[in-house]
Amino acid sequence: MISDLHVRPSANIHQSKLLVLNRVPSLQVIFSACELGVFDLLLKSQEPLSARHVAQELSTSVDGMERLLDALVGIEILEVETTNGTAFYSSTDVANLYLAKGSGRSLHDMIIYQSQTIYPLWNNLADAVREGKNQNEKTSGVPPEEVFQAIYSSEEEMLKFMGLMNSSWVLDGHDIVTAFNLSGFQNILDIGGCTGALAREMAKAYPSSSVTVFDLPQVVETAQKHFSQENDAVAFQAGDFFSDELPPADLYVLARIIHDWPDEKCLTLLKKIHDLCKPGCGVLLVEALLFENRRGPVMAQMFSLNMLVQTEGRERPPSQYTQILNKSGFCNVQVCQTGKSYDAILAIK
Amino acid sequence: MISDLHVRPSANIHQSKLLVLNRVPSLQVIFSACELGVFDLLLKSQEPLSARHVAQELSTSVDGMERLLDALVGIEILEVETTNGTAFYSSTDVANLYLAKGSGRSLHDMIIYQSQTIYPLWNNLADAVREGKNQNEKTSGVPPEEVFQAIYSSEEEMLKFMGLMNSSWVLDGHDIVTAFNLSGFQNILDIGGCTGALAREMAKAYPSSSVTVFDLPQVVETAQKHFSQENDAVAFQAGDFFSDELPPADLYVLARIIHDWPDEKCLTLLKKIHDLCKPGCGVLLVEALLFENRRGPVMAQMFSLNMLVQTEGRERPPSQYTQILNKSGFCNVQVCQTGKSYDAILAIK
Repeated sequence: MISDLHVRPSANIHQSKLLVLNRVPSLQVIFSACELGVFDLLLKSQEPLSARHVAQELSTSVDGMERLLDALVGIEILEVETTNGTAFYSSTDVANLYLAKGSGRSLHDMIIYQSQTIYPLWNNLADAVREGKNQNEKTSGVPPEEVFQAIYSSEEEMLKFMGLMNSSWVLDGHDIVTAFNLSGFQNILDIGGCTGALAREMAKAYPSSSVTVFDLPQVVETAQKHFSQENDAVAFQAGDFFSDELPPADLYVLARIIHDWPDEKCLTLLKKIHDLCKPGCGVLLVEALLFENRRGPVMAQMFSLNMLVQTEGRERPPSQYTQILNKSGFCNVQVCQTGKSYDAILAIK
Repeated sequence: MISDLHVRPSANIHQSKLLVLNRVPSLQVIFSACELGVFDLLLKSQEPLSARHVAQELSTSVDGMERLLDALVGIEILEVETTNGTAFYSSTDVANLYLAKGSGRSLHDMIIYQSQTIYPLWNNLADAVREGKNQNEKTSGVPPEEVFQAIYSSEEEMLKFMGLMNSSWVLDGHDIVTAFNLSGFQNILDIGGCTGALAREMAKAYPSSSVTVFDLPQVVETAQKHFSQENDAVAFQAGDFFSDELPPADLYVLARIIHDWPDEKCLTLLKKIHDLCKPGCGVLLVEALLFENRRGPVMAQMFSLNMLVQTEGRERPPSQYTQILNKSGFCNVQVCQTGKSYDAILAIK
């Protein structure tokens, strides 16, 4: 049983490392509560609700809901007060802000994508290590070399992925676009910029620059239909960055694009960009950088395994990015490690 | 991507709670490394090995293995040193002691069971909450009411479950059997005692008592074939504790048995035991107790969700155990909360 993963904290200093084994279920608890709509209901209700009430509203069993709510209390995502023998559950700031739908900082879409798409891929991690290949064939029937055919395998999957991408710059976006002073670049092209979330952070930080998102036609269409803003600060242009011509720009941005692909495809793309660049122009890479000594950061190491199960790419240390950029023709390469989840590399022609 | 679960630790005190979302992949990394035999190979080799060497020995891709080994370094389960451009990985005490097969404190079997049996059940947690029923039908095709038919669905599953049970008292066994002074009980019967691991802890702590394990015939057979010890301190007796007569004893032990079943079945079993008890004799329950205020312990809350996805039972607070014991006829009930994973309740007739 799950219980057996518990180890006595006092018994041995080494055992504390194994406490990581206790974290599994917490995640599934949050996933399930998001999927079932627990946080949305509690936010909407404005008052504490009993398990029976929540179960009725969300069409679940009372017993199962009660246990789920109790576990959410245990991990301090909800609160409980018992009055006359009945437990009433209420939300916390963290649940309202990050787990309920709709708030500007909501991670809801990210969590649903994790739960429904990423988690099944990670269930095949041992196979991915054996084969050295992504596991899309098992979960979506798409061959390993058609990475984005899997990611965009249906309109629903595309919307989920784009929701994820849209919310993924909520936390780090501003730090990333200000890692270097980019105000000198007049025209910025965010290649594979998806919903435009990072591009909007750029437009906000550099109001005198014009920022355009370049992505696949179906992505641009969906971005404009579902994620556009009134008086949007960014423009969109449709195209395939591997097979189509890229529009001219002073700065090309590749945010979490290089990590999707093997070295040779990255080299092809970066050479194409280098050929387009005028002197003084360049490319900004945004990625989670690995340490050169291989000892971390643990999050980037996990992302690299995620790239293994889902894409053809990997995370890399600064030296590998510098090497690819040099091979592509960029000699002036600066690396900024932000200390956050994502780092920035600026290469100028 | 998994990456998106990262939140800035500095941004907001509330966000730190969401860091729990970062722990998922660590577990899959440990699961996969156990399954592939990484810890066994490193223990056996006695010297640091390159990713290429490990991959070759374990028939995996070099690239996938390298990323897995790096992630294991990141979570401090392995160590790495780079010499002349090649990274060499070595084990740590924690990996050798708990994650490799064979050591007396190995959690290997538990981890394999978690990975292969428990994890797939938890993937259906939202459905379990909706339906209020275990999810065995989806993962093993066995109807929800046939809990142990699912757990013992094949010889392989039975061996894995028994391996789990056997290793599950490695960490807490001694604390549990000494939570009360049981030296006054001459004949102890461990009902559903599986491989005899807890029974052996009892025999060790109370050398003048005789301890017998009572379990299903196929369980006793497998226990004696695979888990018996030379000069074994415990005896075995085969039977079904619901349908067969129980042998007489001074103390009946139910360790993690009550939590598998709904109230009515528990009541039937405890009444049957009460009827057999002479005055002064009794029953010892070993379970993870919930707090009465529903606020924890989080581990017991997670176990209770595990009981939802896998059994017909639940974890309970002391008041509910006392109530069932009282209804069964036991009036003298003492509860000992150990502060460890499992607690003990002693009821005397």
